[in-house]
Amino acid sequence: MFSFRERSKMIRKLGEQPFDLVIIGGGITGAGVALQAAASGLSVALLEMQDFSEGTSSRSTKLVHGGLRYLKTFDVEVVADTVSERAIIQGIAPHIPKADPMILPIFDEPGSTFNMFSVKVAMDLYDHLAGITGGKYANYMLSKEEILEREPQLEADGLLGGGVYLDYRNNDARLVIENIKRAVDDGAIAVSRMKVEEIIHDEQGKVSGVKATDILNDVTVSIDSRLVINTAGPWSDFVNKLDKKIDHKPHMRPTKGVHLVVDGEKLKVPQPTYFDTGENDGRMIFVIPRESKTYFGTTDTDYQGDFNHPTVEQADVDYLLKIVNRRYPDANLSINDIEAAWAGLRPLISEAGGDYNGTKKEKISDENFEKIINAAKDYDAGKQSRPEVEKTITDAAKEEPKDNPSAVSRGSDLTIAEDGLLILSGGKLTDYRLMATGAMKEIIGLLPNGKYKLIDSEKYPVSGGEINPASVDEELKALAKKGENLGLSPDDAKFIADLFGSNAEKVFALKDQGTFEGLSLAESMSLRYAMEAEMTLTPVDYLLRRTNYMLFISHRLMEIKDAVVDAMAGYFGWDTNTKNAYQLELDKQISETQLTDLKKHQI
Amino acid sequence: MFSFRERSKMIRKLGEQPFDLVIIGGGITGAGVALQAAASGLSVALLEMQDFSEGTSSRSTKLVHGGLRYLKTFDVEVVADTVSERAIIQGIAPHIPKADPMILPIFDEPGSTFNMFSVKVAMDLYDHLAGITGGKYANYMLSKEEILEREPQLEADGLLGGGVYLDYRNNDARLVIENIKRAVDDGAIAVSRMKVEEIIHDEQGKVSGVKATDILNDVTVSIDSRLVINTAGPWSDFVNKLDKKIDHKPHMRPTKGVHLVVDGEKLKVPQPTYFDTGENDGRMIFVIPRESKTYFGTTDTDYQGDFNHPTVEQADVDYLLKIVNRRYPDANLSINDIEAAWAGLRPLISEAGGDYNGTKKEKISDENFEKIINAAKDYDAGKQSRPEVEKTITDAAKEEPKDNPSAVSRGSDLTIAEDGLLILSGGKLTDYRLMATGAMKEIIGLLPNGKYKLIDSEKYPVSGGEINPASVDEELKALAKKGENLGLSPDDAKFIADLFGSNAEKVFALKDQGTFEGLSLAESMSLRYAMEAEMTLTPVDYLLRRTNYMLFISHRLMEIKDAVVDAMAGYFGWDTNTKNAYQLELDKQISETQLTDLKKHQI
Repeated sequence: MFSFRERSKMIRKLGEQPFDLVIIGGGITGAGVALQAAASGLSVALLEMQDFSEGTSSRSTKLVHGGLRYLKTFDVEVVADTVSERAIIQGIAPHIPKADPMILPIFDEPGSTFNMFSVKVAMDLYDHLAGITGGKYANYMLSKEEILEREPQLEADGLLGGGVYLDYRNNDARLVIENIKRAVDDGAIAVSRMKVEEIIHDEQGKVSGVKATDILNDVTVSIDSRLVINTAGPWSDFVNKLDKKIDHKPHMRPTKGVHLVVDGEKLKVPQPTYFDTGENDGRMIFVIPRESKTYFGTTDTDYQGDFNHPTVEQADVDYLLKIVNRRYPDANLSINDIEAAWAGLRPLISEAGGDYNGTKKEKISDENFEKIINAAKDYDAGKQSRPEVEKTITDAAKEEPKDNPSAVSRGSDLTIAEDGLLILSGGKLTDYRLMATGAMKEIIGLLPNGKYKLIDSEKYPVSGGEINPASVDEELKALAKKGENLGLSPDDAKFIADLFGSNAEKVFALKDQGTFEGLSLAESMSLRYAMEAEMTLTPVDYLLRRTNYMLFISHRLMEIKDAVVDAMAGYFGWDTNTKNAYQLELDKQISETQLTDLKKHQI
Repeated sequence: MFSFRERSKMIRKLGEQPFDLVIIGGGITGAGVALQAAASGLSVALLEMQDFSEGTSSRSTKLVHGGLRYLKTFDVEVVADTVSERAIIQGIAPHIPKADPMILPIFDEPGSTFNMFSVKVAMDLYDHLAGITGGKYANYMLSKEEILEREPQLEADGLLGGGVYLDYRNNDARLVIENIKRAVDDGAIAVSRMKVEEIIHDEQGKVSGVKATDILNDVTVSIDSRLVINTAGPWSDFVNKLDKKIDHKPHMRPTKGVHLVVDGEKLKVPQPTYFDTGENDGRMIFVIPRESKTYFGTTDTDYQGDFNHPTVEQADVDYLLKIVNRRYPDANLSINDIEAAWAGLRPLISEAGGDYNGTKKEKISDENFEKIINAAKDYDAGKQSRPEVEKTITDAAKEEPKDNPSAVSRGSDLTIAEDGLLILSGGKLTDYRLMATGAMKEIIGLLPNGKYKLIDSEKYPVSGGEINPASVDEELKALAKKGENLGLSPDDAKFIADLFGSNAEKVFALKDQGTFEGLSLAESMSLRYAMEAEMTLTPVDYLLRRTNYMLFISHRLMEIKDAVVDAMAGYFGWDTNTKNAYQLELDKQISETQLTDLKKHQI
């Protein structure tokens, strides 16, 4: 049981046995390392100070995105690697990514990423790199009329037509928990709400473990470990600071990304849609249907605020509404239409000078920076002509970023500090397995020679992923059928099969445990499974991350939220104070997700 | 006869009849316009102050280059247009471009344009855009060993392998003269060494002709014309200044490009080769075998010197030798190995912010420029952090160049001034026909309604181009055979057929005129044809532009140069002073081409 009921025992074990590897951070990076480490036989402890995936990995655009846009800069290896990694994830987690072709409308405007000619060339090249040689997923072009037929709300003025190409939806938080569940099945100990306070060292000054505090009980444990890896994402620099032996230089430079959710009736898109902002800022925006909602994003702004609590601000809302209302003027969206929202931090590495794919350049070499500053001063003093200064600037912009020899995947970095601390940072969600494999090769090399052999992670399914990827639709249907045979409605049975994959049978097996008051049979089974097997500790864990109620099923959310609190209180035996606290936390989270404060402050 | 012997009559005619169109500048741009205008029935006068093609169009890299490199920035339309225009030129001038596959070696170094993966993707995409679907011209990869087998002198250290893809050699100066000859056949009057001094206006202030001076006789003629077009390339601003009615703003910003020629035994390449400079400056260099020589280039530096006389400077030599010696260390080239060299100016438009393909950006908008200057000042004053300043700079670099609505092809511009002066500027050699067509559409619209109909220039061959492009090799062979039948050696017959295309028969027909002293029969026929039908006025015209002796056949050049002067003096009846002056000019040009002065000043 991966449940609160086992949690104290797990924490006790943390203090008892020495581990091969302590992983700090339970987002997708730590989860991916945990799965491969546990499967390879290492004794593993994964510590997460919030809920698993809470900080970052539950806050993505929720796509396993192939990155067509990177063809614009001919980053063909990025696209080739991404689509090949995407295929591997489909193989090891077949219940999570779902094929969902993307419309890319093209507008006649300055600075557009693609035009009607280049988009077709780009999509052909994309299909070529993805090995799509025809069939239902091959790209095709749409005329202006055909796009407007699919999306009658889309701005017709300036619309030229567009393309359709294969992309995949994702469930980011579930990809994390399914990795962690597999690691736990394989013997790992994974504890959420467990905050590392200090990295400890042996007499030789080598990292030998961590001190961590159970936030729920304020109990601190010393954990011995041969190796410690920092997979804290945007928090990477914070964790490094807990290692007092070394003066770690800050290396993260996160940016914030915001997504907004509206009702699908207000903003009608039949399928994911992706377009230039129209701001001539080189950025593109996704508009994606999910359940009966439509969400859109993202923003990309430098972030210096509270990492534990990135919030959606008025400027984020203004930016996204401006762009979406430009493209869908009939939708005429205002802040009051926003039913839910989320903000997340991209774990960008500042030295790499790159965004997720290493293509966004905001770093200039010392030499060129000095040249520009001097040229600007000379210009100001009348000593250089404008063309000369412009040339200095544009030459500097042509400078290529230095290769990062320690990258284990694009935009990521694996560093081993002098005291042995491993720091795995950066990277993008789609590349998590690749990053973990890169780190594991180092880790196994650092452990006693020949003791462990790395598993083939391309073939090793996550929890719930024991489904033949070639026939995933049929297998999920067959699983749903089993639920129907137990008396679930076809919709409920499908919901459970799609969410839990090959674990659906375990969920169905909970039928005899009965229903919670105010919840349907399916909802009760799902909640019970999440509490017993997915370390769901709070109502928010369940409603925001184990499921998507808070983001995309808000009508039902309001109907069941109190029932979920009651059910959890009963199941875990919460006292009134505890229950009230979780109730309050839930209402606060809902209010924040629904932007209640921002809406109040509108003029 | 398009000959000096007719020149006085032609100049007289310039003053007698009113023209539909006066073209100022006899480079490829003016030549292309002249051909289409004359073929469409307009009365046309083309005036060139030097020899045809002398200023710029004889000084290119001498390729009809498809621009693979532009795929790096996914400028797929540039490549698609270029390769399609290249195919059209092959159709209308089949004797000029010759297929000559290019080797692209890949080195393992920072900032490389392509790597072994992306070069294959780029070449596949390039072939796709060029409609190459297999066969002998399809691209393929070479291993490191295979490249070194072809180019044993190439640096092995860091060499990864490379690709081979189809490119074409060109004869730039001959493409110009063949266009002009066709225009003359169709009734145009084309006069070289005829300098426009003034643009004249009618009583309404509209452009109504030009005043031009015959430089050879210092006689000025007034030429009436409905329209006047400035096709002066880098001199565009100078010609605009002759139009006193209007305050034309300068719009050209030329850069200089230098090429160097060495003996093929010193630098052995079996086929054109193209690689990154290794300077991490985003530039690439060609190394191309021609006759028994190898030439390489080009440089790309801002130019503010004497437009009539761009010269090869020590810095140009140093730069190119450094790069070529890096790639071919065994060649160990020094300035004394340089047998010939040329410098030319690219007619870049400054507003367009683009190089030939509109992709080189050296212009920053006023707004962003101001932001950068202010940020730099703030940084210097300690008021902004370096990341902030870097972001300002890199954001400005992402700014997209504004579309140029008056472009008739990429990097080109057609402007009609208030007084009616047409200004056709910028553009690249390969796009000359497209530029001319764009201009002709305007020109015909400005002439009396319905009077002229534009020919289909995609099907209208240049002089010498009356050859079926599908069987050009066979037809040129058949033409050469006719020369052999007249007693020429196979090599001589081939030389004439390749140089003059379908005009070879006219050249062969000159056999009975006999040989000039010191010249072979073929050399005599060729020179005689160039004097009678190609407006060859000076020995340099012949040895540098009508033929390539001065650049690529230097051994024979030294043997025949005086004989050519003697032959021309006899043919044209030069007095001693005239002959001495042309002899001096030739020797000066040879000395300059061979970099005699630079070689003298070596330390």
